[in-house]
Order: sequence, then structure tokens, then C-alpha cells
Amino acid sequence: METDPLLRLQAVLNADIPLSRAMGLAVTTWNDSCLTLYAPLAPNINHRETAFAGSLNAVLTLSGWSLIWLLLDQERIQGKIVIQDSQIAYLHPVESDFAARCCLPPTDQVDRFLAMMRRKGRARIELHATIEQNGQIAVNFVGRYVAVWQKSLQNSLNHP
Amino acid sequence: METDPLLRLQAVLNADIPLSRAMGLAVTTWNDSCLTLYAPLAPNINHRETAFAGSLNAVLTLSGWSLIWLLLDQERIQGKIVIQDSQIAYLHPVESDFAARCCLPPTDQVDRFLAMMRRKGRARIELHATIEQNGQIAVNFVGRYVAVWQKSLQNSLNHP
Repeated sequence: METDPLLRLQAVLNADIPLSRAMGLAVTTWNDSCLTLYAPLAPNINHRETAFAGSLNAVLTLSGWSLIWLLLDQERIQGKIVIQDSQIAYLHPVESDFAARCCLPPTDQVDRFLAMMRRKGRARIELHATIEQNGQIAVNFVGRYVAVWQKSLQNSLNHP
Repeated sequence: METDPLLRLQAVLNADIPLSRAMGLAVTTWNDSCLTLYAPLAPNINHRETAFAGSLNAVLTLSGWSLIWLLLDQERIQGKIVIQDSQIAYLHPVESDFAARCCLPPTDQVDRFLAMMRRKGRARIELHATIEQNGQIAVNFVGRYVAVWQKSLQNSLNHP
């Protein structure tokens, strides 16, 4: 039986991104098309006793990265994922432990992304993610990610 | 004799934002209107052996925050600074220790910001910051920050 993909994702984050350990990041739920990453306030606090903007951005950035990781894993595609650009709006202070929630876009966009990966070995996808506090959106994030088939990545080492 | 403002800024960052210690953040230079914050690659590395996007964003966010802190300190204004929103483009991977450089905008914009702080106790400023690698811009960042006079902040505790 194969290991739970969320456990493997957590292991990848812990092993590959040391700062995720310093932030206390934990993969929590993955329901349907949405993923939630949790972080405690204490290691991510700022001068105003609320969450540091840099931590909020980091957890949101990783929520999008992780959602693509799970999607590619599910589709048995070995891909490397990088973020290309992002925008973030800090609407309200985050005053307690927090969770970043990132959902897949509509099915046609996901299908296009996967088809492009299979055809060209490289595809781009835009993801929205949020952090809520007391039932309202406290932080709004949009990131554009690029995934590259590991095989074509290895080729590109010779032809950068 | 007053303590060096850069030493005080470093102490503020270390004390108030624990993640800045985990990132190994160091205030390095402040020449004319530009501030540089340094971070080593090791604690900020990612799965591709380059700097983690979340770390790059955090250091850039803090470079803008710190530049306003130094400006207000110089002007003897006790202000609280928060970031409102930001945009970031990851143009090239950052493959070694890195430095975020943030410069003040043209004098008229700085003057308007300070005048607004003194008149209204609250002002907004947009700052650009970059991380360079091998002589080219690797990461481009724009952030909008809001500063609030500490006095009016204390009042606002009673009238949120």
C-alpha cells in the first residue's frame, strides 16, 4: 500500500525547506480540490503580536506549491515546481495560529495544465489562496507557478 | 552619544520577529537613501538548492519595513509600520547568500509621506526593492506600507 500523499508532502517540505520547520508548518487537510497548511502564531509573530507578513506570504506560497505537488503526484507526473510571481494583500491582522487554504481552479484549467505538462513537459497555472480569521478573509494571495517535467529538467542541465 | 540606528534596527528585528533570526537576517549597509539586508542561503534554501521564495519575499518585505523604520527614527517620529500589499516577480533563481536592497523614492514623495505623518498621524508609501545575483536583478518587489503615529495607535485601542 502506498504512503498517504499528505505524509509524503509533509516529509518533502520538512526535508527540502528548512524554514518550513522553523515556521512550524503542518499539512493538515486536502479535501476535494483544496489544501490547507497550518502554522502556529508563536514562531511567526511580529512586533505587533500578530503574524509576520513574511510568514503569511511564505505559508501561502507553499500552499500553492503543495497543491500542485499533490496534483502531479496523483497524476504520476514527476515535476519540479517553481513560483514565478505573486501578489498579496494583507487586509486584516492575523492574531492567532493560522491556516492557508488553496483551491484548484475550475476543471478546464486543471485539465489544460495537465495536458500541457504531458505534451510540452512544462506548464503554468495561477492559484488563489487565502488566510481567514474569524470568518473573514485576512490575507488574499494570487501566485503563478510553473511546473517542469523532471525528465526535461535533466535534459536542460546540458542545454540551459 | 546615541546608538547607531542600524544596531538598534538589528536589535528590533531580532527581538520582535523571531523568524528573522531563523533566517539569519543581518542589517548591513545604509548609504544615502538605500538600505541592504543580508541573508545566508543555508537556512533559506529550498528543494532546488536555491533560495526559498518565501524567504526572498520575507527579506524584501523587511527591507522596506526597515527603511521606513530608519526614516521615522531619523525624523524622531514614533510610528508603527505595517505592509498593506505587495507584488513580487521571481525572475532568476538565487543560488547563494543574498541581499535585499530597498531605496527611498524621490524626495518629493518622501516629503509628502513625512508631512502626512505629521499632519494626519498616518501615511502610506510605496517602495521598490530588489535582490541581485551576478549583476542582474533576480527578484523584483514592490510593497505599499502604512505608518501610524504611535500616539494615534494608542488612541485607536479605545476606538478601533
